[in-house]
Amino acid sequence: MSHTAELIAVGTEILLGNIANTDAQMLSEELAALGVNVLYHTVVGDNPTRLAEALELARRRVDIVITTGGLGPTYDDLTKQTICTVFGRKNVFHPEIADALRTHFASIGRELTENNLQQAYLPENCTIFRNHNGTAPGCGFCEGGVHVLMLPGPPHECHKMFRTGAIPYLRTLSDEIIVSHSLRIYGQGESQIEAMLHDRIVSMVNPSVAPYAKPDECMLRVTAKAKSEAEAEEMLRGAIEEVMPVIGEWVYGIDVGSLEEVVSALLREKGRTLAAAESCTGGLIAKRLTDIPGASQTFLGGVVSYTNAVKQHVLGVPASLLETYGAVSAPVARAMAMGVRVLTGSDLALSVTGLAGPAGDDHGNPVGTVFTALSTPQGVFVRQLALGGDRERIRTLSAHHALDLLRRYLTDQMTGGE
Amino acid sequence: MSHTAELIAVGTEILLGNIANTDAQMLSEELAALGVNVLYHTVVGDNPTRLAEALELARRRVDIVITTGGLGPTYDDLTKQTICTVFGRKNVFHPEIADALRTHFASIGRELTENNLQQAYLPENCTIFRNHNGTAPGCGFCEGGVHVLMLPGPPHECHKMFRTGAIPYLRTLSDEIIVSHSLRIYGQGESQIEAMLHDRIVSMVNPSVAPYAKPDECMLRVTAKAKSEAEAEEMLRGAIEEVMPVIGEWVYGIDVGSLEEVVSALLREKGRTLAAAESCTGGLIAKRLTDIPGASQTFLGGVVSYTNAVKQHVLGVPASLLETYGAVSAPVARAMAMGVRVLTGSDLALSVTGLAGPAGDDHGNPVGTVFTALSTPQGVFVRQLALGGDRERIRTLSAHHALDLLRRYLTDQMTGGE
Repeated sequence: MSHTAELIAVGTEILLGNIANTDAQMLSEELAALGVNVLYHTVVGDNPTRLAEALELARRRVDIVITTGGLGPTYDDLTKQTICTVFGRKNVFHPEIADALRTHFASIGRELTENNLQQAYLPENCTIFRNHNGTAPGCGFCEGGVHVLMLPGPPHECHKMFRTGAIPYLRTLSDEIIVSHSLRIYGQGESQIEAMLHDRIVSMVNPSVAPYAKPDECMLRVTAKAKSEAEAEEMLRGAIEEVMPVIGEWVYGIDVGSLEEVVSALLREKGRTLAAAESCTGGLIAKRLTDIPGASQTFLGGVVSYTNAVKQHVLGVPASLLETYGAVSAPVARAMAMGVRVLTGSDLALSVTGLAGPAGDDHGNPVGTVFTALSTPQGVFVRQLALGGDRERIRTLSAHHALDLLRRYLTDQMTGGE
Repeated sequence: MSHTAELIAVGTEILLGNIANTDAQMLSEELAALGVNVLYHTVVGDNPTRLAEALELARRRVDIVITTGGLGPTYDDLTKQTICTVFGRKNVFHPEIADALRTHFASIGRELTENNLQQAYLPENCTIFRNHNGTAPGCGFCEGGVHVLMLPGPPHECHKMFRTGAIPYLRTLSDEIIVSHSLRIYGQGESQIEAMLHDRIVSMVNPSVAPYAKPDECMLRVTAKAKSEAEAEEMLRGAIEEVMPVIGEWVYGIDVGSLEEVVSALLREKGRTLAAAESCTGGLIAKRLTDIPGASQTFLGGVVSYTNAVKQHVLGVPASLLETYGAVSAPVARAMAMGVRVLTGSDLALSVTGLAGPAGDDHGNPVGTVFTALSTPQGVFVRQLALGGDRERIRTLSAHHALDLLRRYLTDQMTGGE
C-alpha cells in the first residue's frame, strides 16, 4: 500500500490525563500490520477550532487520516460536523442507520431519542462502518486524494470497527493485498531473534520478516504482498516454515492474544485441569488465567501462599524444607506445586516462589531469584530464574515463565520430570 | 499560571504501537493539577525533520512545550540536537553532568563510554533536571517566551524527573503558586458527586472544586492559588473541611495511589492480618494487594476457589449451602470468608463470589451478580452487588467493592456484623 497515516484522537478527557489514548496504540499496531506507515499521533480536546486546524494539517502531510472519539450523542457531533466542514462534505441523514438504531433500541426496550438520531447523520457518499459494540456508526470517504476514517472512542468499539469496517475499506485502496502474521515469542529478546534470523531478515523482501520488541516479550511479524489473499497466505506459509526450525522453540502462538489464552486452549484441548500455588506472583497467574471467559472448565483454583505459615498449613510444605532451604528454593517450589495439586485434585499444578523485591532474603538470595515448578503425573519439573527489573517486571516475568513451562509440557516439549 | 502546553513524544516505537504513550497521560494529569491547560498531545517518530516541524508548530500555539523521549545515548541525541536547532541554542558540554555520570558509573563498576558522555550535552543556559531513575538528564529553558522542557521517555524516569525537576521549574513561572489535592472517591460517579456538591462547585472559585471521572472511580480535585504554598495549603484545608461532611463517606484517601495502598496502610497501622477467598475475581484482590512492596507483613495469602470442589474441600464451604443457595449467594460468600480466615489464621478475611460473565448461572442469577463478605472478630459483613459492564469491569469493580468493605471496617464505619 505504502500509505502514510495520522491518528487524531478527539477528547478533553485524554488531555486531562483521565484516560490514556489506548486506541492510538491499538490502531498503530493494526496499521503497521497492513503496511501503513503511521507518521503522527495527535490529540486535541473537544474544541472545533483546534480539531479543524489539526485536520487541515493532517490532510497536507499524510494520505490517510483516522479520527477516534467525538461521535457519541453527548458530544454534539463535534467530530462529524468539523470533518464535514474541513473536507467540504454535507452531513446527511442516512435512513438505513436510523432503522438500525430503531431496531436496536426496540430490542433493549428503550425509546429512541432525538439525540440518538443524530447518529444517523454521516458525511454524504461515505462507506458506513457498523458499530458491533455500541450505537454510533463510523465511516470512511475520500476527498482530494485523502482518505478520512472516523471511528468511535471507546476502545472495544474502536477495535471491532477497525477490524470489521476499516480494514476492508483500506484493503480496497491497493491492487495488492498485504497480509501479515505475528509469531509471539517468549524467552528470547528482539536482538537475540534478530541475530538468529539475521540472513533471513536481510534477504526476505516479500514476504518480509521483522522482529519487534513488546513489553516483556517479542514478536516476529511476517508480511506478504500479493494480488490475492490466498496468494499472500501461501507466501506466508513458506516464510513461517522457513523460520520455525530456528525459533520455533520460543514461539508460543501465531496471531494469538496472550500466553494465558494459548495455555487455556491447550488445557481444554487435552482435557486437563490446573491449579496454582503462588508466592511472589501473589495471584497473578490465577488472575491471568481467569481473565479468559470459561476459565473454570480447566482452572480449578489455587492458593496464594504469601507467608510460610500458609505454605506449611494450607499447602503442606514440610517445615523442615522451609527451614533448611528457605521459602525461595527448588524443594519448596516443588512441594508447593505437589501440595496444591493434592489439595485441589487437579491434573496439573504450577507453583512460583521468589523474591520480587525490594529486599532479598536471609538465605542470601538476591532480588529476582525465582523458582517455578510444574507438578504432573510424569513428575515435577522445576525452573530456576534470575530475573532483572523492578517488582512489577519480576512478577510479570515469573508468571510468564510458569505459564511457558506449562505450555511446553502440554506441547510435549518436556521429558524427564523428577 | 494560566499557561498552555503541548506534549511532544518522540519515538517510532509509539507509532508502531509497540508501546503506549503513557507519559502523556501522567504528565497531563500532573499539569492539570498545576493549573496548566494541555491543548495538544503529539507523537512523532525518531525523525529530525518531522520533530523540527512539530516543534515549530508547538512554539506558535502554546507557551510550554514538553518533550518526552529521544534523550538516551542510543538515540543519537535526536531530541536535543533538534531542539537546539529549532530554538537557536548551542548544545554545550556540562562538566557537572559528566562528573555525576562518572561517579554513577564508577559506583556500579562500569566504564563510562564516549556514548554515555553525550548525555553531558544540553542546551546552553538551561536548568538541568537530574535523573534519579536513570542516567540521561533533562532540562528546561525559555526562548522567545516559550518554555521548553525535555524529559526522558521511560515512564518511571519521566515521572520522577517531572516531580523533582519540572514542577519546581514551572512554579517559578508565576508569582502565584497553585497547589491541589485529589480526593479519591469510590462508590459514587462523577455526576453524583457533581449533584451533591453542586452549589460548592459553582461558588468556589479559589479554591476551586472539580470532579473528574476516572476508569471505575472518580476524583474530586481541590485547587488553590496563593502567594505562598502555606497560604494555598491553608485555603485547601478549608475547602476539604467543607466538602468532607457531604462526600466523606466515599472518599478513600487524599493524594493516595490506590485503594489497595490505603487498605494495606490501614492494616499495617492497626496491626491486622488479612486473607482472601476469591471466586469470580480469580486472584485479582491478592494480586492487587501484593503489588505493594512489603505486602507480606499484613497479607497472609488466600485461596482462588474457582470451582465448587475447591470451595468445599479447601475452604470448607458446606455442600448443603452450595446446593441450596448456589455458589453465587450470600451464605456461600460468608462461608468462604470464614473458611479462609480459619485456614490461614488471619485476623480478617475477604471473599468474593459472583458472575463475571459471559454466562449467568442455573440459579437464575444474571451476569453482574456478586457477593462480597468480610469475616472479622465482630462478625461477618456481606454486600450484594449488581454490576454492569463486561467481564473485566465486573471483576475490577468486585475487587474494588471488597477492598472498600475492608476499608470501611478498618476506619470504623461499620457496625453490626452478623
